[in-house]
Amino acid sequence: MTGRLTIYGDRISGNCLKVKWVARHAGVNFDWIDVSVAMGETQTDEFRQLNPFGQAPVVVFPDGRSLAQSNAIIFAIADMSSSRLIPLDGFARAEMLAWMFWEQYSHEPAIAVRRYRKAILRRTDAELDPALLEKGERALTHLEQTFRGPFLLGEEASLADVAIVAYTRVADEGGFDLASRPRTRAWISRVERAFDIPETEGRA
Amino acid sequence: MTGRLTIYGDRISGNCLKVKWVARHAGVNFDWIDVSVAMGETQTDEFRQLNPFGQAPVVVFPDGRSLAQSNAIIFAIADMSSSRLIPLDGFARAEMLAWMFWEQYSHEPAIAVRRYRKAILRRTDAELDPALLEKGERALTHLEQTFRGPFLLGEEASLADVAIVAYTRVADEGGFDLASRPRTRAWISRVERAFDIPETEGRA
Repeated sequence: MTGRLTIYGDRISGNCLKVKWVARHAGVNFDWIDVSVAMGETQTDEFRQLNPFGQAPVVVFPDGRSLAQSNAIIFAIADMSSSRLIPLDGFARAEMLAWMFWEQYSHEPAIAVRRYRKAILRRTDAELDPALLEKGERALTHLEQTFRGPFLLGEEASLADVAIVAYTRVADEGGFDLASRPRTRAWISRVERAFDIPETEGRA
Repeated sequence: MTGRLTIYGDRISGNCLKVKWVARHAGVNFDWIDVSVAMGETQTDEFRQLNPFGQAPVVVFPDGRSLAQSNAIIFAIADMSSSRLIPLDGFARAEMLAWMFWEQYSHEPAIAVRRYRKAILRRTDAELDPALLEKGERALTHLEQTFRGPFLLGEEASLADVAIVAYTRVADEGGFDLASRPRTRAWISRVERAFDIPETEGRA
């Protein structure tokens, strides 16, 4: 990709940070523009011009076109650069996408949502829907039980790892239990090293 | 793709039917094995061997490997066949994925879930979470307002159309209003024609 990418993102949002990490890993030049979800900065008319849904992240490509949806954005960045984060094998590529769809359906809506309400909006446990804790724990258990190698697809890091690590690494802020999941913790450290993610980045 | 694909699917599930429609459109030979979600057939030990999550659809490829997550499956089938359902242009391919991630995050969890509870489990409106109706209506409004051509990406049908039509075409069974959305209704008919979907297929 020639030219600079502009990433509109919230510094404590895993969905936004995964875009930054993939751009950096892929050697793509980018500018990061801070927007705060909690301060309502994704709900302004100006922001809705970029993304009618009022969600971060949004990226603007060098040719002026914008794209939403974190996992579609990281696919685009990896696909249009010389990154090796998308497997060449068709089945492995589909498995990677399966993890990424799983993340947005079964992981993020519980883990990211409970963490946002608990650690950022400062809701008490009693104010939180118990279904969020249950669904998130189920997702984390699935993850702990399915590692077949150092990374989700085996020997090499892929977009699946960065998509899922984004909220798994801060799941404790949502009241989820990482201490009892040693394989998940070791995988988080490996992915943080592979993508040069400081342990403290993006914490609430 | 050489050899036959086996699709384990529920006949009234949009997530399952989209796999069948894409396989047929891509000219891939397949066997369809009926599993009933409502009858608990996705929760048996045998089924969980195929998909630890106990969800349909699951497909088994000719080499014996299985894959879950409807939108990853249709990507794999289109990707491994000579189908033209995935755009060649990198940006258009990412836009297609953005729609597919949007479907699984903002459309299916409201529209498919409310339709399942109302039309299949026969819950009354009073028993249903009002947030489902609100979220689903918001998704349908977004859809109605964003068509830029005959199909979601423009002139050509893509996986985005089939992914999103799957539950949009039966949204009325979930109590959602299609009558007031003429562009959506015209698009549903176009996608049904493009994929040879009988109007009555998959209705509850």
